[in-house]
Amino acid sequence: MFSDATTEQVNEAMMRSGKAFKAYSKSSLQQRATLMRAIADEIDALGEELIHVTMRETNLPEPRLKGEKARTMFQLKSYADACEKGDWLEARICTAVPDKVPARPDIRKMLVPLGPVLVFGSSNFPYAYSTAGGDTASALAAGCTVVVKAHPAHPETSELVAGAISRAISKLDMPQDIFIHLHGASHAVGEALVKHPAAMAVGFTGSFTGGMALFIWANQRKVPIPVFAEMGSTNPVFLFEEKLSTDPAGIAKMIAESITLGVGQFCTNPGIIVGVDSAAMQAFVSLLGEKMDAISVGKMLHPGIAAAFVNKAEAVLQQKGVSSVSALSGQAPIPVPRPLLASVPAAEFLENPLLGEEVFGPFSLVVMCNNTNEMKAVATAMEGQLTSTIMATENEALGNMDIVDTLSGKCGRIIMNGVPTGVEVCLAMQHGGPFPASTDSRFTSVGADGIKRFARPLSYQNYPDALLPDALKSENPLMINRVIE
Amino acid sequence: MFSDATTEQVNEAMMRSGKAFKAYSKSSLQQRATLMRAIADEIDALGEELIHVTMRETNLPEPRLKGEKARTMFQLKSYADACEKGDWLEARICTAVPDKVPARPDIRKMLVPLGPVLVFGSSNFPYAYSTAGGDTASALAAGCTVVVKAHPAHPETSELVAGAISRAISKLDMPQDIFIHLHGASHAVGEALVKHPAAMAVGFTGSFTGGMALFIWANQRKVPIPVFAEMGSTNPVFLFEEKLSTDPAGIAKMIAESITLGVGQFCTNPGIIVGVDSAAMQAFVSLLGEKMDAISVGKMLHPGIAAAFVNKAEAVLQQKGVSSVSALSGQAPIPVPRPLLASVPAAEFLENPLLGEEVFGPFSLVVMCNNTNEMKAVATAMEGQLTSTIMATENEALGNMDIVDTLSGKCGRIIMNGVPTGVEVCLAMQHGGPFPASTDSRFTSVGADGIKRFARPLSYQNYPDALLPDALKSENPLMINRVIE
Repeated sequence: MFSDATTEQVNEAMMRSGKAFKAYSKSSLQQRATLMRAIADEIDALGEELIHVTMRETNLPEPRLKGEKARTMFQLKSYADACEKGDWLEARICTAVPDKVPARPDIRKMLVPLGPVLVFGSSNFPYAYSTAGGDTASALAAGCTVVVKAHPAHPETSELVAGAISRAISKLDMPQDIFIHLHGASHAVGEALVKHPAAMAVGFTGSFTGGMALFIWANQRKVPIPVFAEMGSTNPVFLFEEKLSTDPAGIAKMIAESITLGVGQFCTNPGIIVGVDSAAMQAFVSLLGEKMDAISVGKMLHPGIAAAFVNKAEAVLQQKGVSSVSALSGQAPIPVPRPLLASVPAAEFLENPLLGEEVFGPFSLVVMCNNTNEMKAVATAMEGQLTSTIMATENEALGNMDIVDTLSGKCGRIIMNGVPTGVEVCLAMQHGGPFPASTDSRFTSVGADGIKRFARPLSYQNYPDALLPDALKSENPLMINRVIE
Repeated sequence: MFSDATTEQVNEAMMRSGKAFKAYSKSSLQQRATLMRAIADEIDALGEELIHVTMRETNLPEPRLKGEKARTMFQLKSYADACEKGDWLEARICTAVPDKVPARPDIRKMLVPLGPVLVFGSSNFPYAYSTAGGDTASALAAGCTVVVKAHPAHPETSELVAGAISRAISKLDMPQDIFIHLHGASHAVGEALVKHPAAMAVGFTGSFTGGMALFIWANQRKVPIPVFAEMGSTNPVFLFEEKLSTDPAGIAKMIAESITLGVGQFCTNPGIIVGVDSAAMQAFVSLLGEKMDAISVGKMLHPGIAAAFVNKAEAVLQQKGVSSVSALSGQAPIPVPRPLLASVPAAEFLENPLLGEEVFGPFSLVVMCNNTNEMKAVATAMEGQLTSTIMATENEALGNMDIVDTLSGKCGRIIMNGVPTGVEVCLAMQHGGPFPASTDSRFTSVGADGIKRFARPLSYQNYPDALLPDALKSENPLMINRVIE
């Protein structure tokens, strides 16, 4: 229905984006914020049509999509507020000290935009991490132009949202090329975009395979560019005995709902559950399996994802020592899967790296340990994660700080007695984590700090006030927070 | 004199560093600051012996080394102050909002250390960017352990400084493995270090070839790690006519001194000078050549660098259109070179990428343009730079904002009517720049913001106060600046 962009179209898009960057990078914080708010309004104005198209393209239910649309508008508006507030600029002023030996000149620093940003949206968040999602909003706030490659699983949705962005730009009489929208089901389009010299950064949410392809292309360039790829994770949950005993049914319900939320198609759904084997733990696992069995999930995003889920889950079940808790034999034909819980002794888990891999969908693997030492060994063996969760009383956590510290060292967000699904859009949110959860653990893709992914510091030395950007002028016309030394 | 570390020694060092990280990463900001100040004191206590050893190893003169030693101690102390102040932690607290739908949990975020950091020191800064230099200080402030590979051009200096660090650690009864010092003249040592799984980040100052080797090894790992490599640049100076006419002799003196400072062995010395051809410009260039001829420089750091300087300068002189202003024929035998100024028409410069490469040493190439449009073309053709300098009256700068903007987009620090040499150690300093000046333009290697290279954000969700790090506890026991929402 939509043709892949040709090499010529990619080249032209990047050339236009680079040209538009020259003007847009000099736009005021207020102009950027106004644009972002206008985009939110235009997305709102798409109304029911958008929801219905996306329901058809993604199988996601109406309430979920309405919620995600609201979240997308909230992101645009809250990053617009952050953009305008200007804290993200990290403005620093060191005034001249002429009598120092050698004399210190006046030096002022702030973040400036990197250049055209490529955004590769996700399949599982057709609004919030796609065409006008967190990466696009962050890039626009930073002063970067954006080239989006529509996700091939929801191209019509992407077209509609791109149209909304385009109308917002028109209404504000800004250059259309601030935002360019392309289609590309083939990898060749992605490669041509990433390898184009005008591209200066990449935002991505999706699979490890997809993220690594972008990362490798970006580093093969004559001028390597930063890639912020959020590539998912297994989000381990570490259960401790005393905590478990307080409310096994409540904890089972909470975790079952988190595993199956959105048909398990969240990058933060808990895919590994670790605890010490005991009668209580076995009872809990049975209970968790029952709760999951009782949950009817919807269709997965598309048949390819559903097939991958079944294949991957079956592969896990075939590994040595793995047994099914809620049986895959009850698996309905794709694309409506049944939630699946499996179990494996820690000794087998530790010897088989396949068991540590993400199974995208409503799946979780219980790792049964002989004691907390083995829990520590499992924590130590974990790869980088978006999140880790600890279910423990305060005393248990204090008594197992080596496990808590090990998990903290492996993730971007650590949760105590909660679930990892539900990524709050706020300043204190870190969404990203040590590799392979993301390609750069030093940045977040959710929350206003995500703006900083697409900017770099520039120092201005001995500049007359008239030539300085407003953010650094002595009289502080933007009235932003600055550090002055 | 010093043997290269064996593979076993590299493995053992990294294993020990990883183990020490577990304890050191939990040290308080005050403990880290105390360690850094103690290191500065121990370096001071090395007294004349250190200076004399380094003079012998590097040919650098006594006053320069005394100044650099003072700078190194200042860096340690000022980063210690910044470490203790805690602004770099970027502590953010979003308190719970139970009545939001869905409820917002309590989320708090701060930067946490990455892990063991490898430091590859520079040849041209045997103290300030070597064993106890800016990278080591930044890593220790961040809570990372450090493994230094001594620069093979000044191994004895490195041993002495490592001894000082070791004594500081002993006196404070901290674990020795916080800091480990190895030798390695061969690339194999560097490769083994970078590819060791325990290594979590790399700091480097040196050549493009050296920096890129580290960058490629780091990306070949199963778990890629960040590399902050500062790889030098040509630091172009753009001269405008009106400014030039105000004080040609003064400008010539200032630039001649900057080109030849430290025998031109600074990564910020101006290697390219761009202006519009005119009688005044030609007179200025002759004057600049005379000033440079009149400056007697010392020996270069070592015979290899001196030979490379002569070879590279001769190669430039052999390019089409290049003519010598201060004659290479007057070149003394290495290792005492003579400063060299050459000139080339912009049309030739634009066609020959070799002319844009750094010639490490007291060398500069004047690029003669027909008009400011050609100056703009030269600016556009520039690769990423640590610095760019504009010599212009305010009116000239305002009238040529396209050139100013183009240069701003290509560098980490832009200087108005000054010289790029002299990298002030202050919060507003950006030392680093778009590739190939450095491998990550989003960070600086000078100034307290450099601490952030070796840290990443971690969010704590729904954490009881007793389990939170002090920096995030509700009562703010460290009394640091935090953003609270």
